[in-house]
Amino acid sequence: MSLENIRDDEVDIVIGALHSDLTTFMNEWKPMFCRFHLIIVKDPDLKEELRIPDGFNLNVYTKSDIDQVVGSSTSILFSGYSCRYFGYLVSQKRYIISMDDDCIPARDNKGFLVDAIAQHISNLSTPATPFFFNTLYDPFREGADFVRGYPFSLRSGVQCALSCGLWLNLADYDAPTQALKPEQRNSLYVDAVMTVPAAAMLPISGINVAFNREVLGPALIPALRLAGEGKLRWETMEDIWCGMCVKFVCDHLGLGVKTGLPYVWRNDRGNAIESLKKEWEGVKLMEEVVPFFQSVRLPASAATAEDCIVELAKVVKERLGAVDPVFTRAAGAMLDWVRLWKSVGSGASSLRA
Amino acid sequence: MSLENIRDDEVDIVIGALHSDLTTFMNEWKPMFCRFHLIIVKDPDLKEELRIPDGFNLNVYTKSDIDQVVGSSTSILFSGYSCRYFGYLVSQKRYIISMDDDCIPARDNKGFLVDAIAQHISNLSTPATPFFFNTLYDPFREGADFVRGYPFSLRSGVQCALSCGLWLNLADYDAPTQALKPEQRNSLYVDAVMTVPAAAMLPISGINVAFNREVLGPALIPALRLAGEGKLRWETMEDIWCGMCVKFVCDHLGLGVKTGLPYVWRNDRGNAIESLKKEWEGVKLMEEVVPFFQSVRLPASAATAEDCIVELAKVVKERLGAVDPVFTRAAGAMLDWVRLWKSVGSGASSLRA
Repeated sequence: MSLENIRDDEVDIVIGALHSDLTTFMNEWKPMFCRFHLIIVKDPDLKEELRIPDGFNLNVYTKSDIDQVVGSSTSILFSGYSCRYFGYLVSQKRYIISMDDDCIPARDNKGFLVDAIAQHISNLSTPATPFFFNTLYDPFREGADFVRGYPFSLRSGVQCALSCGLWLNLADYDAPTQALKPEQRNSLYVDAVMTVPAAAMLPISGINVAFNREVLGPALIPALRLAGEGKLRWETMEDIWCGMCVKFVCDHLGLGVKTGLPYVWRNDRGNAIESLKKEWEGVKLMEEVVPFFQSVRLPASAATAEDCIVELAKVVKERLGAVDPVFTRAAGAMLDWVRLWKSVGSGASSLRA
Repeated sequence: MSLENIRDDEVDIVIGALHSDLTTFMNEWKPMFCRFHLIIVKDPDLKEELRIPDGFNLNVYTKSDIDQVVGSSTSILFSGYSCRYFGYLVSQKRYIISMDDDCIPARDNKGFLVDAIAQHISNLSTPATPFFFNTLYDPFREGADFVRGYPFSLRSGVQCALSCGLWLNLADYDAPTQALKPEQRNSLYVDAVMTVPAAAMLPISGINVAFNREVLGPALIPALRLAGEGKLRWETMEDIWCGMCVKFVCDHLGLGVKTGLPYVWRNDRGNAIESLKKEWEGVKLMEEVVPFFQSVRLPASAATAEDCIVELAKVVKERLGAVDPVFTRAAGAMLDWVRLWKSVGSGASSLRA
């Protein structure tokens, strides 16, 4: 495939606001955000008014907007981190870049501020190479290339549909790791982008990601919600499940997933020790989820992300539903999401900015 | 699995000498090499006497040693880069670290000399995680861990059997890339080790590698020799084919392969433009090799590296033999190698040091 030329007006930056005061967050990102349209979705559980500085091109969506578009006819919940998915739904842009509101721009090994937006756009606009591993990392990076032995027929690559960024300072650990190593901080800036090979599974974190909404949008779903889910990233599973679904869909459709750059700087939040008191439902669920995704195959007739999610939801219900009711609910939410995506996409909403 | 404790006397450093004067090479590596036993195998085509500085614990093997051990009853050729495999054969150690003689120690991002030997040993002594991708790279590195969503049942990992290092300055490109971009040099030091996921194929370069000889030795084979093969790395395929076989065997046996650190600094050698005059037989062969390895499966009864290579050789002959006689010869060499490995291992050689 050839390079995609991504224009600024083809991108929406989506921010799920879990905190009312976005002043510092927005000001830190201003040099990177100012050229783009922003969608800010306020966590429907958040009571206070949002504080957003001037000087941005943005639309804010709140609980009343969500109620108006989604109504009560769905199993999808947009509370907490899941509020960002409402932004994915109402966007009209080809690309989404999504960022948690506790992240600020990171600095690279030379001390320069990292433009995470530009890096995500670069990741999405150059091909991915999921069918053979390049030991020299991203072959499309300046100064890099394919290693000796890399088959020429695979060098054109495939479309990159998802770009997963990483985290400095507070890395994306789960509750037990965070609790066992409360002092651990990530200070290693690994200067590399790579394609995650086809068939390799990974948990995608929603903290700092970008994707091609046009081809992959229906596959990014807030489907799996834990009973004891809180407002701390380490207590959630919605993006992990979403990531497993998305990678699975990408593998089926022959699309690429990249990981590595850009880094963002994650600020500390919450008390890890408190989370020790919780039951780590998500940790147990992953033991069921991994063998499931390793073994499931979709029919070749599933040719779009929507098709894939509908097919996948059926198998989730059949094979995982008996294990835990959380999976039955997830399967229902996946189907509801596809219906919602279609109805909003077909002009049912007057809210789209 | 738990950490392996690798003692200095369990390691052989193998150097295939394609150049007679090893003085600079050996002196540059002295701080890293001096604690280990070295096996130097002189390219049987090299006429001049080797020049090796004092102060090392080593054995040198030459054409007469090769003739004595291998005799004429085999299809294996040990000329050029393939001479290193003779070192793998006669070693009695559990681990091999192999280094091309045009490499010297690299410097990291902070300007410190990299101890490639220590890094390879570290890679081999900590588990690999081929069954799920960790976006935070090697979870066993100090300061790192498993990312949120990584299944706990997979966190103990598997034995790492192969460690592939990388190259600064002259990267490991093929002849066409080298010829098209003669000025391109690799200056990007990516500070990461990662496990290559199961089922992901990669071309392993023999320039800077380490492996567990006890479990994987019989799978490192100089089997595929191109008609127009020269004494420049970019003109060879022997290690690419070997790497495809080794990764395939590791996947079948549930062993891990790591790539990334350590880097070495590769000095320029040869005229890339000259290679434009050659026919790039290897480039064409890879187009056959990749679909082959993607589709072949071994019986579960193949439980050792030896078993795997014997089974694989059969399928190579059957399915690739008709495509090009080079594959029939490779299949023959694979079987010869396993026989040779067994005979030398059972004490047929009086040369072992």
